Amino acid sequence: MTEEGSLSELPRAEALELLSSLPVGRLVFTHQALPAIRPVNHLVEDDKIVIGLTAGSAIATSSRGGGTVVAYEADCLDIAERSGWTVIVVGLAQLQTDTEAVLHYRARLRPWLGGAAADVLTVSMEIVTGYRLPPARPASEIVRIAQ
Amino acid sequence: MTEEGSLSELPRAEALELLSSLPVGRLVFTHQALPAIRPVNHLVEDDKIVIGLTAGSAIATSSRGGGTVVAYEADCLDIAERSGWTVIVVGLAQLQTDTEAVLHYRARLRPWLGGAAADVLTVSMEIVTGYRLPPARPASEIVRIAQ
Repeated sequence: MTEEGSLSELPRAEALELLSSLPVGRLVFTHQALPAIRPVNHLVEDDKIVIGLTAGSAIATSSRGGGTVVAYEADCLDIAERSGWTVIVVGLAQLQTDTEAVLHYRARLRPWLGGAAADVLTVSMEIVTGYRLPPARPASEIVRIAQ
Repeated sequence: MTEEGSLSELPRAEALELLSSLPVGRLVFTHQALPAIRPVNHLVEDDKIVIGLTAGSAIATSSRGGGTVVAYEADCLDIAERSGWTVIVVGLAQLQTDTEAVLHYRARLRPWLGGAAADVLTVSMEIVTGYRLPPARPASEIVRIAQ
């Protein structure tokens, strides 16, 4: 029986499957020497996270050229059940400049804000960490299961 | 009539009200020179975000003493409706060392993981940014509303 409310680490494959199952996550980067975070739409393809950006986004400037290290997080948290999972990826963010690659990814992205993505950012998946929090069971249910 | 799928900035008071309405958010900081993010439980009190940490957390070490600048994000995103809101706070994270303050906050926190919070972190609210994304309406509904 799992310890109530304990955190279990997920294998990389399972973490990536969960990440792929959601269309939104949060991009974490540094902007003007301050920590920054933005919810964005994503898809997972070619072992990369692909993100559509609106025009003039803060991350687009700093990830041009050699790229910049970012974190990406997606989660599914059930507040009532106090359960869920979180997947965190750390990798290199690079603004796609190759026209063919931009068109390829843009056709697959479905941004929440109107219109097609102005820029396409890819994030390599260097470090993948995932955790699952099993639902906390009421004591009565634990007794019932144990019988 | 609101432009379909447009992003509207929220006043500070409304952003803080939304932040207070949720028990979970994501703490963004730098750890070993890499961007880091962790889902945590929070409450808003005394114009501060109060976060309970498990023992030996990465952020606890770097926020001891003078503190460290972090970002904090909470959101409520409706994937089916493609609507929701996000609130982002940038401020100084400080590990609470005053026993009375620790006990005060610990009694109010309700961490997801078993047991009381080992450490209590507060984040001042220097920069508060909030956005709301209204639901994208089907054209038929827009016509009906306009009549």
